[in-house]
Amino acid sequence: MEAKVLNRYFELLRLESVSSDPAKLKECTQTAMWLKALVEEMGFTAQLETRDFAPPVLLAERKGENPATVLVYGHYDVQPADPLEEWKTPPFEPTLKDNRVYCRGAQDDKGQLFAFLTGVGDYLDRQSVKNLPTPTIRLCLEGQEESGSPALIKMAPELRKRISADVMLVCDTAAAADLRPAIVAGLRGVCHFTVKLTGANRDLHSGEYGGAAPNAALGMARLLSTLHDERGEIQVAGFMDGIEAPGAEEKRLAQESMPSPEEFARDIGTEATTGNLAEALGFKPTIEVNGIHSGYGGAGSKTVIPAVAIAKISMRLVPGQHPRRALDCVKRHLEEHCPQGMKVEFPEEAEGAGGFRLPVDSPVFRLAAEVLKEMDPRGAVFQWDGASIPVVSVLKEVSGAAPLIVGWGQAGDRIHSPNESYGLDQFGKAREWARRILENV
Amino acid sequence: MEAKVLNRYFELLRLESVSSDPAKLKECTQTAMWLKALVEEMGFTAQLETRDFAPPVLLAERKGENPATVLVYGHYDVQPADPLEEWKTPPFEPTLKDNRVYCRGAQDDKGQLFAFLTGVGDYLDRQSVKNLPTPTIRLCLEGQEESGSPALIKMAPELRKRISADVMLVCDTAAAADLRPAIVAGLRGVCHFTVKLTGANRDLHSGEYGGAAPNAALGMARLLSTLHDERGEIQVAGFMDGIEAPGAEEKRLAQESMPSPEEFARDIGTEATTGNLAEALGFKPTIEVNGIHSGYGGAGSKTVIPAVAIAKISMRLVPGQHPRRALDCVKRHLEEHCPQGMKVEFPEEAEGAGGFRLPVDSPVFRLAAEVLKEMDPRGAVFQWDGASIPVVSVLKEVSGAAPLIVGWGQAGDRIHSPNESYGLDQFGKAREWARRILENV
Repeated sequence: MEAKVLNRYFELLRLESVSSDPAKLKECTQTAMWLKALVEEMGFTAQLETRDFAPPVLLAERKGENPATVLVYGHYDVQPADPLEEWKTPPFEPTLKDNRVYCRGAQDDKGQLFAFLTGVGDYLDRQSVKNLPTPTIRLCLEGQEESGSPALIKMAPELRKRISADVMLVCDTAAAADLRPAIVAGLRGVCHFTVKLTGANRDLHSGEYGGAAPNAALGMARLLSTLHDERGEIQVAGFMDGIEAPGAEEKRLAQESMPSPEEFARDIGTEATTGNLAEALGFKPTIEVNGIHSGYGGAGSKTVIPAVAIAKISMRLVPGQHPRRALDCVKRHLEEHCPQGMKVEFPEEAEGAGGFRLPVDSPVFRLAAEVLKEMDPRGAVFQWDGASIPVVSVLKEVSGAAPLIVGWGQAGDRIHSPNESYGLDQFGKAREWARRILENV
Repeated sequence: MEAKVLNRYFELLRLESVSSDPAKLKECTQTAMWLKALVEEMGFTAQLETRDFAPPVLLAERKGENPATVLVYGHYDVQPADPLEEWKTPPFEPTLKDNRVYCRGAQDDKGQLFAFLTGVGDYLDRQSVKNLPTPTIRLCLEGQEESGSPALIKMAPELRKRISADVMLVCDTAAAADLRPAIVAGLRGVCHFTVKLTGANRDLHSGEYGGAAPNAALGMARLLSTLHDERGEIQVAGFMDGIEAPGAEEKRLAQESMPSPEEFARDIGTEATTGNLAEALGFKPTIEVNGIHSGYGGAGSKTVIPAVAIAKISMRLVPGQHPRRALDCVKRHLEEHCPQGMKVEFPEEAEGAGGFRLPVDSPVFRLAAEVLKEMDPRGAVFQWDGASIPVVSVLKEVSGAAPLIVGWGQAGDRIHSPNESYGLDQFGKAREWARRILENV
């Protein structure tokens, strides 16, 4: 990779664009301004749109001579870096080692987005040299994806004219094993909320009160244990209603790109909780506990009965589930199962967006498959990704564009975890893909 | 109260003697040295005994002319102050307001201990003025009670000669409602440990892996929910074996000093989990979760599947339960119920000590009841305290002394909680009690 490109990539990674932390709004804004300067240099006209103290949305356009319009969506915000003590290199100082860049955001999505934009630049340079026409290219780059994109989702209807397109390119997902190209034919939706359980009016002495006073830590444990049965099946009334089952062809294709149970176990360091990975990750919803905190957690012991417990809960949704209804089902379940003498509250929630599946025989998928076959003789697999890009569901509706979601992540990238990284080979693929698909649109 | 006494009390409270925090060992040692100077001024010969980097044990003796020997046990260490944000005044800066002193340790046990020692000083001064004989008084003041007294429990057998006595006075418990005197006729034992549950080899992205990877937060919730049934009854095999049931007279007396269910509910801000407070707090064991920590707990959302969860667990034990066996039963239960694909470990444990009950018609109890009747015409009640002073069980055996446990706490003192306080009236009672019981021994 050219030194200039690598330096810019590192510059971008050093900006601590953590969207979930209000204290990092300045860094998010700096990141948006950095990207604005980058795309202006590439010939785009760009604006930053800001709403409600959210990180800015970068909207940009480069008018072309072709009738086609391409929309590129990406996000410049990243997950929080904690737990900090597990990082082997500083989380916001990119470190190149064995052709991999280690940094929060090295892959998700600053790395993939920057690689893709570099490819867009390559394409524009080539067309310019050959004096060839280009399509109109629009960019919609936001800084709140890791927090569910509330601002962009809210402003999307206002932006209809500025983001409408024929195809929407998204480079925020993973390729299959060994970097075999993958086209995402479906994404799960996501929504999340915080649950707070309160027992007594203060932390109590576990000797003076133990046996007669409600314990919020234990109450939260009991409460959360009602969400699933012992086989992990969701036990929330109404939550599974209306789910659209996948077709036989979807199931067959999904199976193709799945790791084997052994590979999966090697990756996560323990056995999977299910024998059918394709179904569990692509076609079934989840209710996950992202965190529980209550009472003492330091060295030694503190014999208290905790008064308060909080849990962070998120859900992955599949087509047929509406996020609002799913949230309400789980909240109602928790209220109905609230232990005696305790109070359950929901201090925070985000409705997120639903999941979707795209028909695998559409013209845009056929075109993408051809381009990817040129890049890799193995050809592309179709994936029903378990992850979510909630805003893509919304942009798909508003822009009228057919989503073409092709990313170059790998399971070992440790996105959302300490020691996130992105290989230079992956960067190169994302860059090449951007150039080639634009050549063929 | 004399200004000199109040100033010294405040001096003692300002020392941050948190024994569970290894970083506070210096402050614990300073506190022990402060107490050594205090009792030397009262005519005691004192030594600090230190083992294994634990806070020192202060042993002191003042030889008397009477044949009787009295041992005074107390502890100068305090609970950690967290959660700091809930304190209305600085936790280690004593604040006098409406005749109450607010500070961590204002009551438990620096306040009660200092009040008692002040009463010992009053007694010695009076005897000296009247030129009257005194018993031999021994002191055993330690700085690790809130952490289960491991060092003192370990060194107790070596100290046999220096702590042997006829009566052991302990001022570390609560009086009954409205400061009616109470003699503790039983204490529960206590032991504690930390449980760590590990699922995957790192925190995982809840979209990429959700539905197929084990979740340590949820696993911990499910695991802890197996400890009790829905009525709160302990479900750990073997844990309840061998428990010695209380007699009818004990049950009757215990009932006398119990708050009503309404009073109890007012105190803790919610209803009790049982209708029989006397039985639940005095005669039944508990397994409490003192804390759970796993995954994300900050603002907004972080959609991870936590790899690790820890929980802090403590048990209150009753006569017939051996701490080692109780610990082993609970650990075995957790191992047997460990969710599939996860690993359970116990990185820390403390065996603590068993509980005991004393016969209510003993000579020392009859004497104490007479003295307390002189102090308060309502007379004393007997209490089977739900709390534990593990080292008292051990010192009782080693010293051969009959424990006489009379303290002047009140439910509103918020010991172990933010905004701990001690009333000057309570201080006065503890001081008077020390003087009067020594006059009658």
